[in-house]
Amino acid sequence: MVAAKYTIHRNHCHHTWDKTHAPVLTVAPNESITFDVTDASAGQVTQTSTSDVFAAYDSGRVNPVIGPVFVDGAQPGDILCVRILSYAPSGWGWTANIPGFGLLADDFPEAALHHWNYDPTGSAPLLYGENARIPLAPFAGTIGVAPAAPGPHDVIPPRHVGGNMDIRDLIAGSALYLPVEVEGALLSIGDTHAAQGDGEVCGTALESPMRVTATLDLIKDRPLAMPRLDCPPRPAVTAPASPRNRRVWITSGIGPDLHDAARASVRGMIDLLAQERGLPAIDAYMLCSVAGDLKISQIVDAPNWTVTFHMPQSIFA
Amino acid sequence: MVAAKYTIHRNHCHHTWDKTHAPVLTVAPNESITFDVTDASAGQVTQTSTSDVFAAYDSGRVNPVIGPVFVDGAQPGDILCVRILSYAPSGWGWTANIPGFGLLADDFPEAALHHWNYDPTGSAPLLYGENARIPLAPFAGTIGVAPAAPGPHDVIPPRHVGGNMDIRDLIAGSALYLPVEVEGALLSIGDTHAAQGDGEVCGTALESPMRVTATLDLIKDRPLAMPRLDCPPRPAVTAPASPRNRRVWITSGIGPDLHDAARASVRGMIDLLAQERGLPAIDAYMLCSVAGDLKISQIVDAPNWTVTFHMPQSIFA
Repeated sequence: MVAAKYTIHRNHCHHTWDKTHAPVLTVAPNESITFDVTDASAGQVTQTSTSDVFAAYDSGRVNPVIGPVFVDGAQPGDILCVRILSYAPSGWGWTANIPGFGLLADDFPEAALHHWNYDPTGSAPLLYGENARIPLAPFAGTIGVAPAAPGPHDVIPPRHVGGNMDIRDLIAGSALYLPVEVEGALLSIGDTHAAQGDGEVCGTALESPMRVTATLDLIKDRPLAMPRLDCPPRPAVTAPASPRNRRVWITSGIGPDLHDAARASVRGMIDLLAQERGLPAIDAYMLCSVAGDLKISQIVDAPNWTVTFHMPQSIFA
Repeated sequence: MVAAKYTIHRNHCHHTWDKTHAPVLTVAPNESITFDVTDASAGQVTQTSTSDVFAAYDSGRVNPVIGPVFVDGAQPGDILCVRILSYAPSGWGWTANIPGFGLLADDFPEAALHHWNYDPTGSAPLLYGENARIPLAPFAGTIGVAPAAPGPHDVIPPRHVGGNMDIRDLIAGSALYLPVEVEGALLSIGDTHAAQGDGEVCGTALESPMRVTATLDLIKDRPLAMPRLDCPPRPAVTAPASPRNRRVWITSGIGPDLHDAARASVRGMIDLLAQERGLPAIDAYMLCSVAGDLKISQIVDAPNWTVTFHMPQSIFA
């Protein structure tokens, strides 16, 4: 854990993006800040929760973000460069199927909750019961700045100024470039994940409180349409790399609608994991969300596109 | 190159999927067959072509597939397992922007053509002029069986019985599982690529004639909704793996439509490659198609999804 000049505690959070939110900290460029990030349920899910927690879930409190931070000199038209120095995961997290939420919400109407108690150093894989072992790969699902448009703006959907992008590549050592739209940029961070696959298909990742340390730098007068990143390679899988267990299962969804094709590819993987690993469908669905990857194999052979879902077999080794 | 029991020459090709096409070969399960695959232009693009070739391009001849092969005992409701034993690339190929085709067809109305002359053994990287070096990673873009529905069916779009899926993971050592819909399955192969990124965004990959050797096996009475694969890990990049050049650039497209978001992410990468590498836009676009990857980072934070485009910096090392 890198020692930071400033720390922002988890009670300094907000639940909407809004340029009128008062900054909780003002910094010069390039100073280090630790954000003490709570989990995406804002503490509603605890280490003793069961899936019953979602019966009285307050969705107005979810996905709190820590901040905002005012960066001296940041002006509309600049780029804010967020350099991630370190993540300090807490060692506990959860993955859930929350009714009405997720890519296959219609297929899985019942709430489900899985707890993860894991080695926060990453020296041991994270155990999905006896079913799978996945590598620790922490990142912040939500990093964003205030939009210029008058708010409040819902914190769940991401936008061109970032927010809940859930780009799992944003590991320590990454740089994230965001367009600045208001004076001071007003940056906030939340929704930390100990692991996630591309797609976050069940709607939750490995949701885990952790401390995030970053610096904020400016590139003056450089308009940017959408967020951009520069990332180190993702950590290798922790299982022994025999040729057998480095293979990958891939299921496809083929058709004229990318969303429907994505659904078909994930349904295909849930079927495959039932056949090959005996996993109950709900457990396979949540495993897909933390350890599998959603890709677009081709988007040019009109009118049908190929979406694929990828599962590394190493997690079963 | 594995010696196969049978060879099907490139003149045994067809341009539609149709269950009435007469088989060019009948085999027992598990026998090896070499398919001598021409390039996706069916020989219209030659080693001396310029981009003028697309002015008189006959799109009715494109993407020919070699076959069909009748597999003894294959019945509707079975799975056909295609095991790829080897690819023997030819050492020449092309990548093009064909007007009216590709994810950013509106942005790039002019024809462009890049020739690749490469080491077919893969011991040297493939040179994109002086701009980049990419690894050889051959696969067949099109593998499919005849649909039960009366034809003819266009060979360009893929379907639930496979076809032009363009899944770049289908490298040697892979198994592809396809649903059988007609007696004998009627399998054909075409559209070989020496390299391609996820998305094949400009509409063409590194289109390259090559010989494909495979066996065809049956799993009886196992319905399958969509194609499924079991693949070895993709070849590592050929550049030296210093921490610096193992990083990846990522651009994002965020919004309520996956297709629009995909376009935004590719436009972002074209802008980035202009800024970071001085690449002209059309060259960056074609490089994205052969060496970059289109992924869905999240598809659950309604109403906005995050599509990302990934470019490994190793290709510039």
